[in-house]
Amino acid sequence: MEELHKLFTPGSVAVVGASEKVGTVGRAILENLITTFKGEILPVNYKYDRILGLKCYRSVRDLPKAPDLAVIAVPASSTPEVVRDLCSLGVKFSIVISAGFKETGPDGARLEDELVSAARSCGMRILGPNCLGVYDPWSGLDTIFNPNDRQAKPGAGGVAFLSQSGALGAAILDWLAEAGIGLSKFVSYGNAADIKEWELVEYLAEDPRTTVIALYVEGVEDGRKFMESVRKAVAGGKPVVILKGGRTESGVKAVASHTGSLAGRGEVFSSAVRQAGAVAVDSLGDLINVLKLFARGEIPRGRRVGIVTNGGGAGVLSVDAVESVGLSLAKLEASTVENLRRALPAAASANNPVDILGDAPPERYVTAIEAVAKDPNVDSVIVITLMQSPAFDPKRFAELVKELRSQLEKPVVLVAPGGSYTMNHSKELEKELAIPYYRTPEEAVRALKLAVEWYERYRSIKG
Amino acid sequence: MEELHKLFTPGSVAVVGASEKVGTVGRAILENLITTFKGEILPVNYKYDRILGLKCYRSVRDLPKAPDLAVIAVPASSTPEVVRDLCSLGVKFSIVISAGFKETGPDGARLEDELVSAARSCGMRILGPNCLGVYDPWSGLDTIFNPNDRQAKPGAGGVAFLSQSGALGAAILDWLAEAGIGLSKFVSYGNAADIKEWELVEYLAEDPRTTVIALYVEGVEDGRKFMESVRKAVAGGKPVVILKGGRTESGVKAVASHTGSLAGRGEVFSSAVRQAGAVAVDSLGDLINVLKLFARGEIPRGRRVGIVTNGGGAGVLSVDAVESVGLSLAKLEASTVENLRRALPAAASANNPVDILGDAPPERYVTAIEAVAKDPNVDSVIVITLMQSPAFDPKRFAELVKELRSQLEKPVVLVAPGGSYTMNHSKELEKELAIPYYRTPEEAVRALKLAVEWYERYRSIKG
Repeated sequence: MEELHKLFTPGSVAVVGASEKVGTVGRAILENLITTFKGEILPVNYKYDRILGLKCYRSVRDLPKAPDLAVIAVPASSTPEVVRDLCSLGVKFSIVISAGFKETGPDGARLEDELVSAARSCGMRILGPNCLGVYDPWSGLDTIFNPNDRQAKPGAGGVAFLSQSGALGAAILDWLAEAGIGLSKFVSYGNAADIKEWELVEYLAEDPRTTVIALYVEGVEDGRKFMESVRKAVAGGKPVVILKGGRTESGVKAVASHTGSLAGRGEVFSSAVRQAGAVAVDSLGDLINVLKLFARGEIPRGRRVGIVTNGGGAGVLSVDAVESVGLSLAKLEASTVENLRRALPAAASANNPVDILGDAPPERYVTAIEAVAKDPNVDSVIVITLMQSPAFDPKRFAELVKELRSQLEKPVVLVAPGGSYTMNHSKELEKELAIPYYRTPEEAVRALKLAVEWYERYRSIKG
Repeated sequence: MEELHKLFTPGSVAVVGASEKVGTVGRAILENLITTFKGEILPVNYKYDRILGLKCYRSVRDLPKAPDLAVIAVPASSTPEVVRDLCSLGVKFSIVISAGFKETGPDGARLEDELVSAARSCGMRILGPNCLGVYDPWSGLDTIFNPNDRQAKPGAGGVAFLSQSGALGAAILDWLAEAGIGLSKFVSYGNAADIKEWELVEYLAEDPRTTVIALYVEGVEDGRKFMESVRKAVAGGKPVVILKGGRTESGVKAVASHTGSLAGRGEVFSSAVRQAGAVAVDSLGDLINVLKLFARGEIPRGRRVGIVTNGGGAGVLSVDAVESVGLSLAKLEASTVENLRRALPAAASANNPVDILGDAPPERYVTAIEAVAKDPNVDSVIVITLMQSPAFDPKRFAELVKELRSQLEKPVVLVAPGGSYTMNHSKELEKELAIPYYRTPEEAVRALKLAVEWYERYRSIKG
């Protein structure tokens, strides 16, 4: 799959339909590239000699050379001709942003066929049409045309995210950025007229920058190839997380009128996906929440959870959540309990869930987290911080836990229910400590459960 | 239950253990009262003549009169004596903030018995001990001693929230404030040595300011009385939402070491609660999410959901969520579909889920929301706004929907997945339009489902 490499890391990009007009797709993409792309940018529009300080070419035929990639944002009806011209030049990759193809009905489907034929005649590969294209924080390629003040984009990291839906993909991307999850690539592949999602997964399975693959899909054309690509990625140690739109009967119908995909039955798809070793999630929340773990490599090796809390009630809710989803409350070694009993105040609970009381300062947290995380019967640690308590000093906590964290080889997650003060400080801790933060015990526990299930499937596939 | 009234609306409050020392419970409570309480405040501490500008009394015996309420924040061992002195004065209500009773073991339990006997000997009622006490935004009574920069408190509204756990209760209170949910009363009742949760529920069932009752409980002493009080509240048209800590085997054990309550089996409790007409939730998230509906009286009268979205994928996920939880996708009247088809662009989908496309301006939202909300086959409306799209103008949307909303008699909720821009604007819309906002379709749908289930139970109890 080496061949898709230049799609993400072109040395030069032509923007066909580049524009100076504020609010247009052609302007937004050009601005993005000027801001972040290191290679050569070649705007194409018959109306201009120069755009935003760059020389503009009247037509594709006027380009001085074949760019590695063409981004096409012109009316759908013109795209086949543009592609034929690009073919003559010898261009190998195009991203067709334009909408108005298969998703609009039979006429659009015929146009899409024409577009694909034009590309295939010269061996050009096409991403799209009807898509947002690619955002690659490593290469600086960025064809997402939403305004940057509304649409945040994650920095460079290990998560590749593929989305059949452009708008939903953009919203998730925005959320991933806010959640501090680093990205290897975002691909909105739209109608997948040529490049299929399974090819992208195969490519990402080999891509050294990608450590996790997430997908929003409504339908896949070739189920067998898709599952094979997933299995390949998983066997290589990369978690794959799939959110499928169209899991219910009504959902399947909604998909038909959205992307025109044949959605197939939800359970069949989910069970095939799971058999291939992937995580099938049922909600946006679970998708983001489990990615918070995978992105940071925080993958529990087993189901036994240790809990440290400064509030008994929140500890109880966590225990309920752990048992409800099929994880188990770790039984601490007698020596751990004994050590904790000596180190903690008399009113504290030294058993799991370890309740270090409402007046717990950061130092007490460190004592408890270290003891629990180093216990051989614990696979992951949930740390609950009710920050309404004046004893909790977020800054000091950050300093102390940062030091401790480098010694711990097990996932540690933060749970902090509350309002603005708590949310702001939790997000800071999440960033500073690279520790996944959840607002509720239930969200944290579901994420841990999905992650450990992945690990178990990975082990069984790996053998 | 008229008799509990003065606990929440005293004309005068003595603070036994009032202090000048920053960081103490006695100082925090006194400061709260000075800031928000309209009645007379009588600090008691043998060390001071004046505190924070108020005359301070050396002992309870020195008080010039019997205050309507005494708030006691002195070491546990001194509380029986303080109560005996308050009794001599004729005080009718005390809130015992102090910890160190039943929750600490047999010695503490004996002390708690002594405290209760002292109160009962003179007919005094006691809230607590081991609690945060009361926050009543209507009367200004506020005994929550967390620092106000960490602990937000909701403004006046209709939700009463009772919590057995102080710390968790405080965190939830903080969250409710951030979610813009108005409160009638917050009660942290701690060990419930005298005043029981069922008495509080009975009182709130009659309280005209309370329209919704929410509880975090770990165990109730008298299940029959508790269920009766719940049924009374529900029969009076007040939704009751209960989050029970200790629903699983391990959770029950954790409860025993937290509050020492006999938790009982989760399913038995849940099913009794549901039979009494309440909503039993399993997670903090569901608790907050359904309160967002109940607090605003947004209660669907049926299970048929209409969806308006500017993104097809988010629409599909919503449909899946609706069908997954047992709600149903509303089948719009032919005339509604016809009207929408005429009003919307050709590429839009006029059927439910109504997809008004990524370039939908606020005007198009209003057209679609109005048509869907007025359709007789629709019981509630989910409005999805992917705000990454430049066409979505939050300010204009607020203006237009505000006008429309007053005409609509069905619940309308907002779903807006995304990052900071989206979250900030969604919260503003939530406030300005009094419209519940959810970050994911799945959360919105679960909340609607819990609310409609309550309504169905209420109808069947009401007959």
